[in-house]
Amino acid sequence: MNVRQGAVHPVEAPPLQTDGAANVLLPRIRMKDLQGMPGTVGGVFLRFSQSLFAVVALSVMVTTTEFASVTAFCYLVAATGLQSMWSLALAIVDIYALLVGRHLQNYRAVSLFSVGDGVTSTLTFAAACASAGITVLIGNDLDACANNHCTQYETAIAMAFLSWFAALPSFLLNFWSLASR
Amino acid sequence: MNVRQGAVHPVEAPPLQTDGAANVLLPRIRMKDLQGMPGTVGGVFLRFSQSLFAVVALSVMVTTTEFASVTAFCYLVAATGLQSMWSLALAIVDIYALLVGRHLQNYRAVSLFSVGDGVTSTLTFAAACASAGITVLIGNDLDACANNHCTQYETAIAMAFLSWFAALPSFLLNFWSLASR
Repeated sequence: MNVRQGAVHPVEAPPLQTDGAANVLLPRIRMKDLQGMPGTVGGVFLRFSQSLFAVVALSVMVTTTEFASVTAFCYLVAATGLQSMWSLALAIVDIYALLVGRHLQNYRAVSLFSVGDGVTSTLTFAAACASAGITVLIGNDLDACANNHCTQYETAIAMAFLSWFAALPSFLLNFWSLASR
Repeated sequence: MNVRQGAVHPVEAPPLQTDGAANVLLPRIRMKDLQGMPGTVGGVFLRFSQSLFAVVALSVMVTTTEFASVTAFCYLVAATGLQSMWSLALAIVDIYALLVGRHLQNYRAVSLFSVGDGVTSTLTFAAACASAGITVLIGNDLDACANNHCTQYETAIAMAFLSWFAALPSFLLNFWSLASR
């Protein structure tokens, strides 16, 4: 567009050049910066919540010595590990974007964040549900909490659910901003 | 762009007026009718798949006599029951919309479908994960499939996951069309 207009009206080249410079400074497509989206303070807060809850869930589950004998608990450790790494990485990206004053609202970045959030949060939720099913089986149905660390399991599962709750707004906001561009 | 060109060339006003009349005839906001959205043949197909898989999951789980002693299996029965009723109701709405040639793309309807799909698919997924966790515990960790109907559990869980897989596009398409209006 700029090139064509420049060819038709060569005298207008300097003001168009200024427009072009402004376009370089501002991103071509601007989505609304809702709090919680990438590159906002709310986004950093959500990312830190996700990774904090995931790390606590992982730590509490790992401290129970017999977690390795139950597949679902191993899966919970793996899923919360992945969630914490993903969230921490995106928290660092968000902080960098805030510090240098860049927007993270371009299509590719938001697509990547959206897919990553969808996958990690689904894995965390699935692991939390599977572990919760087993803990309810041990505690309510078999009444065998005396021989098991039910409290630790429950704490780890609750933290995993909180991590998922914090990841959900990130996913929905990214998906929303992807659709509404 | 059109408005600016109209101001420069007032002779183009009549065609612009015709454009305005066409806008009155067409609804003000039209979402794209992608296959799988409410009121499309793809949407009916998705709804029937969801309810069929959910009903099969429910039936297979209910035929195991001891499902009532495990909380997660009862929850699976409840969640797939809800999913099948919701999907069947929306299938009927979709077929009605197709028969009378109405679009189901207004904001309120799509919001309702989106929230309903989100809630029912999350409940189905959670129930399937919890039941899968217990079945893996029985089969792999405790090696006690000889005393339990592992095959029936696995079939019911697989059907519940398939129901969730069929519900996911409905939710994502509704949410997408909600955001992109």
